[in-house]
Amino acid sequence: MSRTSLELRSTITPDGILRINLERVPVPEPAAGELLVRVEAAPINPSDLGLLLGPADMASLKAEGTAADPVLTAKVSEQGLAAVRARVGQSMPVGNEGAGTVIAAGPDLAHLVGKRVSMIGGAMYAELRLIPLQACIVLPDGASAAEGASMFVNPLTALGFIETMRAEGHQAIIHVPAASNLGQMLVRICKDDGIGLVNIVRSPQQAAMLRDLGATHVVDSSAPDFREKLEHAIAEKGATLAFDAIGGGEMTGTILNAMEAVALRSMPAYDRYGSATKKQVYIYGALDTGPTTLRRGFGFSWGIGGWLLFHFLQRTDPAIVQRMRERVAAEMTTTFASHYTATISLTEALKPEIVAAYQKKTTGEKYLIVP
Amino acid sequence: MSRTSLELRSTITPDGILRINLERVPVPEPAAGELLVRVEAAPINPSDLGLLLGPADMASLKAEGTAADPVLTAKVSEQGLAAVRARVGQSMPVGNEGAGTVIAAGPDLAHLVGKRVSMIGGAMYAELRLIPLQACIVLPDGASAAEGASMFVNPLTALGFIETMRAEGHQAIIHVPAASNLGQMLVRICKDDGIGLVNIVRSPQQAAMLRDLGATHVVDSSAPDFREKLEHAIAEKGATLAFDAIGGGEMTGTILNAMEAVALRSMPAYDRYGSATKKQVYIYGALDTGPTTLRRGFGFSWGIGGWLLFHFLQRTDPAIVQRMRERVAAEMTTTFASHYTATISLTEALKPEIVAAYQKKTTGEKYLIVP
Repeated sequence: MSRTSLELRSTITPDGILRINLERVPVPEPAAGELLVRVEAAPINPSDLGLLLGPADMASLKAEGTAADPVLTAKVSEQGLAAVRARVGQSMPVGNEGAGTVIAAGPDLAHLVGKRVSMIGGAMYAELRLIPLQACIVLPDGASAAEGASMFVNPLTALGFIETMRAEGHQAIIHVPAASNLGQMLVRICKDDGIGLVNIVRSPQQAAMLRDLGATHVVDSSAPDFREKLEHAIAEKGATLAFDAIGGGEMTGTILNAMEAVALRSMPAYDRYGSATKKQVYIYGALDTGPTTLRRGFGFSWGIGGWLLFHFLQRTDPAIVQRMRERVAAEMTTTFASHYTATISLTEALKPEIVAAYQKKTTGEKYLIVP
Repeated sequence: MSRTSLELRSTITPDGILRINLERVPVPEPAAGELLVRVEAAPINPSDLGLLLGPADMASLKAEGTAADPVLTAKVSEQGLAAVRARVGQSMPVGNEGAGTVIAAGPDLAHLVGKRVSMIGGAMYAELRLIPLQACIVLPDGASAAEGASMFVNPLTALGFIETMRAEGHQAIIHVPAASNLGQMLVRICKDDGIGLVNIVRSPQQAAMLRDLGATHVVDSSAPDFREKLEHAIAEKGATLAFDAIGGGEMTGTILNAMEAVALRSMPAYDRYGSATKKQVYIYGALDTGPTTLRRGFGFSWGIGGWLLFHFLQRTDPAIVQRMRERVAAEMTTTFASHYTATISLTEALKPEIVAAYQKKTTGEKYLIVP
């Protein structure tokens, strides 16, 4: 018996067209150590959108193909094409993580058939996924697919921030934008673990929502006294480390300048080189893909860097990573619960009006694909 | 007998005036471990100008006072004033380093009277400087003050770049702007030590000058094929670390994007997150005080940070620092020779037309104050 699976694919053609379609692909039988999983839920994370949509112009989204074989297209500028030349012409599967039910297993894993698992590894926007057990977490009986769909990217990223803070000797964290699903997890973790957290949000509604979750330090970047409030919160928590998913624009520089302003206040005398307090911001997303602008009023003791979960996991002690995974499994429905704005099918994921909605990456909104 | 010294002072007043004058200050007798030095030469480094001129408007330079007691003034904008509020109202001595002859010494150091020394520690734009021996290098007999005037800032910075490269596991260095006095030292060090160096200069003349010194990889940022040549040089030397004294504008981002373009070429498959090659740029100066603009096409494995000699020296193994100082003393007239564009007196350092010339920080030009 040979199985097939409908799988979402994203291709950018040499002549500058993004093409998303559903391909029927053969699925081999699971070998030792492998599970064959029927995918039941897979979130659309901001980290998926880069691969799914590339640098395509969202104003040019167009439905093509047929109802049975839908195709979505959009235009890619010459400049955009140059930026992704390494993927041009390749039909790429999408979807970092998901959850589903094991329908077949390698000879050593037959006891897992019928169990529900959470998975990481790409190609989750599909009916079936053949996957090694080590890329899975077996869920407790009764857990829903939606509950298990987002157990890797956001939870491990939030815990990774904490481990990075510890490894680099900081006392507290600044997070922006803090109202995201990830941000909400971070609020719960820091509250439980007694870690200082300064939450930067972009509206009074988001601030109220985080305070309801127990956040003590929330500053609203849309308020006229944002900079003053930010400095006050930084001073209270002694925060010298930030994680910024916006990336473009002024936020990274604003945070560094606020940290420096706080550090300068406790200096006994003027130093033309600024404070010696080490200040670090990690950019871990690109909600704003425009240039990052740094107005360098923060002396010489500072760093900015990229932060990526997959690099972090590769470079971190496996015992720490294992502890992180166990905590996620134990606190799946509490600390690490995700909330979804809408549930869509694979076919709906290709509809222009639905793509237009989920590609906005509105903070706190998240879509779930149910193949 | 009580000695006095004429000392250059820079003050920014609460109403936004930069005021530079010469003050006569009393000089105590040297205690144990101290030397009293008649300053004979002190360079004007870019790192001195920030303290000397602050954020004053150079178009508003004005000579006041008398010939015997000259005063230079300039206007400071409200924004500029806010940036330096910690120094407002303070009369600040200037001049990081210099050289001169010991005219008195603590009881334990009497044998050094008459010797010439090189010094670091500020307040060098003065007739006399009382200084601890540990902030000095005793020069060999026959060394001139000009030869010994710049033995700390540039030489230790150049050697600090090499130590940073080693400590962080990089193979080669990119330096910009490479035609500076510091850049010329770096060319000689890297040539002697067999270290890969990519020199970014800003004109064909500067490129020719560095090639005459033995530089093998020189790229001219004013050339139309700059980016292509830069990638080629980075690929040849395997450079993943850069030191940038420009700071503002696009250079830091351009270097990171060029490093990433080189790294991507050797990747077996497309990765939406870019290369895992660690890429680092340190900003160690501010020749362009405008914002730093980063067009983030360089994945997630990158860092940017401030680099300051004084922080480096504090955070580095003293044995390494000692080895660096010994090398500078041994190669004072060869590797670490500086060239000066003009020699000026303390009084001339306050003349508007002369300030206008040295504040331009033209690469490769350097002024020497001879009090």
